[in-house]
Amino acid sequence: MTQSVAEPCLDDPSTTQPAPAPRRRTGARGARPGGRSERVVRAVMHAAAAELARAGYMALRIEDVAALAGVNKTTVYRRWPTKAELVKATLRSLVDGDGEAPDTGSLRLDLLELVRRIVAVASMPVGHGIYRVLLAELHLPEVEAFARACDDERFAPWREVLERAVARGELPPGSDLRLIIEMIRSPLALRLFQLREPVDDSVLQAVVDTVLFGAKNGGAVLRAASPGPPEPPATAAPAPRDPAHR
Amino acid sequence: MTQSVAEPCLDDPSTTQPAPAPRRRTGARGARPGGRSERVVRAVMHAAAAELARAGYMALRIEDVAALAGVNKTTVYRRWPTKAELVKATLRSLVDGDGEAPDTGSLRLDLLELVRRIVAVASMPVGHGIYRVLLAELHLPEVEAFARACDDERFAPWREVLERAVARGELPPGSDLRLIIEMIRSPLALRLFQLREPVDDSVLQAVVDTVLFGAKNGGAVLRAASPGPPEPPATAAPAPRDPAHR
Repeated sequence: MTQSVAEPCLDDPSTTQPAPAPRRRTGARGARPGGRSERVVRAVMHAAAAELARAGYMALRIEDVAALAGVNKTTVYRRWPTKAELVKATLRSLVDGDGEAPDTGSLRLDLLELVRRIVAVASMPVGHGIYRVLLAELHLPEVEAFARACDDERFAPWREVLERAVARGELPPGSDLRLIIEMIRSPLALRLFQLREPVDDSVLQAVVDTVLFGAKNGGAVLRAASPGPPEPPATAAPAPRDPAHR
Repeated sequence: MTQSVAEPCLDDPSTTQPAPAPRRRTGARGARPGGRSERVVRAVMHAAAAELARAGYMALRIEDVAALAGVNKTTVYRRWPTKAELVKATLRSLVDGDGEAPDTGSLRLDLLELVRRIVAVASMPVGHGIYRVLLAELHLPEVEAFARACDDERFAPWREVLERAVARGELPPGSDLRLIIEMIRSPLALRLFQLREPVDDSVLQAVVDTVLFGAKNGGAVLRAASPGPPEPPATAAPAPRDPAHR
């Protein structure tokens, strides 16, 4: 349901500096490209990203964002009635690909496209401040609720890609899709956002291939929890779901 | 080399409250079990864990730890001459199994033993405070250096277990062992320490099996980075290392 609150809206953040140009879905309802409306959206997104990185979620004030963006605060409220909506739009504006699920016909290529979006965000100067700030605030119920809400949106393209793969027979039914998503994202988030290390394409491929290979072979099908460690079929057949097997 | 600074000494922390009884290697050089010496070590470890969770690494003062433990600060300095040593010993004292590498003859069982140690630490009330505090300080060079030093020690049993598996032929040569470690640890750290969700044995097994299955089939052998996504052998043969394959 709710996923990696842990990397709060992690694909999205990126921080300390100018946010990238917002994409279409940024909340700019009906903004004409290049028009005044789009310029306003862009300015507000930039300002909100900078403020978020500086002040964090709890202390973020729409007034400050408006002032920094050089717009009237009612302009901000009109488009984004709540702080949560403004911040969500801001985080979304950092993500490439408009949050759409890729659909190449190959699960591997779809996943590579998704992980490359994360790398693209991490390569922006804006990322780590927002990440750190949100993570530090994650124990606050309001921030946690916000992060969980974000996750639902953020994981949607991942789920879509995986569900299609299950439907195509590329993944065994019963695979824990959330776990697959977390297994791919978290080692990359670790390096990109926590260790702040560059991650090249060979690492992306290794993570995707390792998890995908294991998942295709039933590794991510949860078996009934057993107290002891049954020496298992870590080799080829999908993990048994037979309740007798414990 | 340096690993998951990200979850700073993550297996170890656990927080806010009484640390568990320290194990033998805890720095209690020559302490007789049950003797005064061991009681002192135990009191200091408890106090240091509580102080670390409260104040973080930077603000931790050996004086405060000594006062809280009810011992003279020279007693603390005598055993742990620096703050880094004290904190390292404290984190180590939280880990089951004494930091020794398991050696069951099966890589899967060895890894399950190691991940269960992480779960054991996470189940202590002490964990998340230390985790959060260290993570929030990780951008400070002193804390980062400390965390990296910790990692070398912390990952040692993991490396040992994986190296033995390579030697036995259970893993293909050229596998990126650090990446394998991170792929197993980080999704679990995500749930245990960041999301604070319980992780049952079926999830542990799924993570270990998925990564292990992928790694055994060459998923964690890094290929030359290629700009485009070569549609790959995500099926059975070890990833090609042939430089012609890009």
